[in-house]
Amino acid sequence: MLNLASTTAPHWLERALANVDEILLDHAHCEKKAASTAVSLLFRYPQHTALLDPIAELAREELAHFKLVVAHIHQRGGTFARQVPSTYAAELMSAMRPNEPQRAVDMLLCLALIEARSCERMQLLAEHLDDAGLRALYSSLLASEARHHRIYVDLAATIAPANVVRARLTELSLHEAAVLAAAPPVARLHA
Amino acid sequence: MLNLASTTAPHWLERALANVDEILLDHAHCEKKAASTAVSLLFRYPQHTALLDPIAELAREELAHFKLVVAHIHQRGGTFARQVPSTYAAELMSAMRPNEPQRAVDMLLCLALIEARSCERMQLLAEHLDDAGLRALYSSLLASEARHHRIYVDLAATIAPANVVRARLTELSLHEAAVLAAAPPVARLHA
Repeated sequence: MLNLASTTAPHWLERALANVDEILLDHAHCEKKAASTAVSLLFRYPQHTALLDPIAELAREELAHFKLVVAHIHQRGGTFARQVPSTYAAELMSAMRPNEPQRAVDMLLCLALIEARSCERMQLLAEHLDDAGLRALYSSLLASEARHHRIYVDLAATIAPANVVRARLTELSLHEAAVLAAAPPVARLHA
Repeated sequence: MLNLASTTAPHWLERALANVDEILLDHAHCEKKAASTAVSLLFRYPQHTALLDPIAELAREELAHFKLVVAHIHQRGGTFARQVPSTYAAELMSAMRPNEPQRAVDMLLCLALIEARSCERMQLLAEHLDDAGLRALYSSLLASEARHHRIYVDLAATIAPANVVRARLTELSLHEAAVLAAAPPVARLHA
């Protein structure tokens, strides 16, 4: 259902559990970035009117999640701050084809895969974190990530035929797995 | 309460009423831009933690308004599309001082003034439009614009002393009035 070509290796979870505050901070940045990228699509693709409403709503949800994660950071006595991001998103998106409408399709599918990987890893966090509040946080976010994955795939299918989208999603999911397999060992949601 | 240094001239309203669809499209773009600018503040000022939650919420509201205005455009048989923006925001913001923390204060106060001007003009639209649905739309948005004005002024006061913010708001409101007085005669919310 998540269309991922690989399963997260155990050492990712070990690193995440050993660096919970770093993961939480990264997560807040990821939600902010997801909102920002969604809003940027409203600027880039005003002509794709089927995208406007769902993507504006998606951005609203990412901002709600941003607020929620920042609240958890504050509860733990931390503060939101700058952080070096993982190279994952940039490397994933380097596979986007430059010309339209392929670019729009690839962009939506890359965003779909980021949501899918978030979902897969939040499931692991929801199952294995020591802190009950954080387990509840990740349990509550899981379903949204899966839903966002679905929305992005469906929106791609408003721009290209469904079978074309499906084939491209398979290609990009292999690329996504390769990007993760080669990622440096840092404590990030996508690394 | 809105801290504006001028009152909108009657010819703005005449032009708006004669170009309702153009105003509506501009309005949708303004809500989208307001959301985008708010999100950009989360990237630029992560260290100003007092800003994070209110600005994320503000961006969510702008996106809800964007959806609402686009729905009205569709109801009228129109479509969302690119449009040449007015030069107002860029000219207003050209007065921002370049160094921090003055830049942050000026940015927040410019955004406060944009919200104030929107509020003043939406009041005129709410009173004078022929279409009852659009009158209701603008009546419903008025209060939010006034509240957003207040929030941005209050947030500026988390970065600089209140009397400094107050004095700078007066300066910038005079600049805002001058920008509008010199604006070319186009049908835009801020022109």
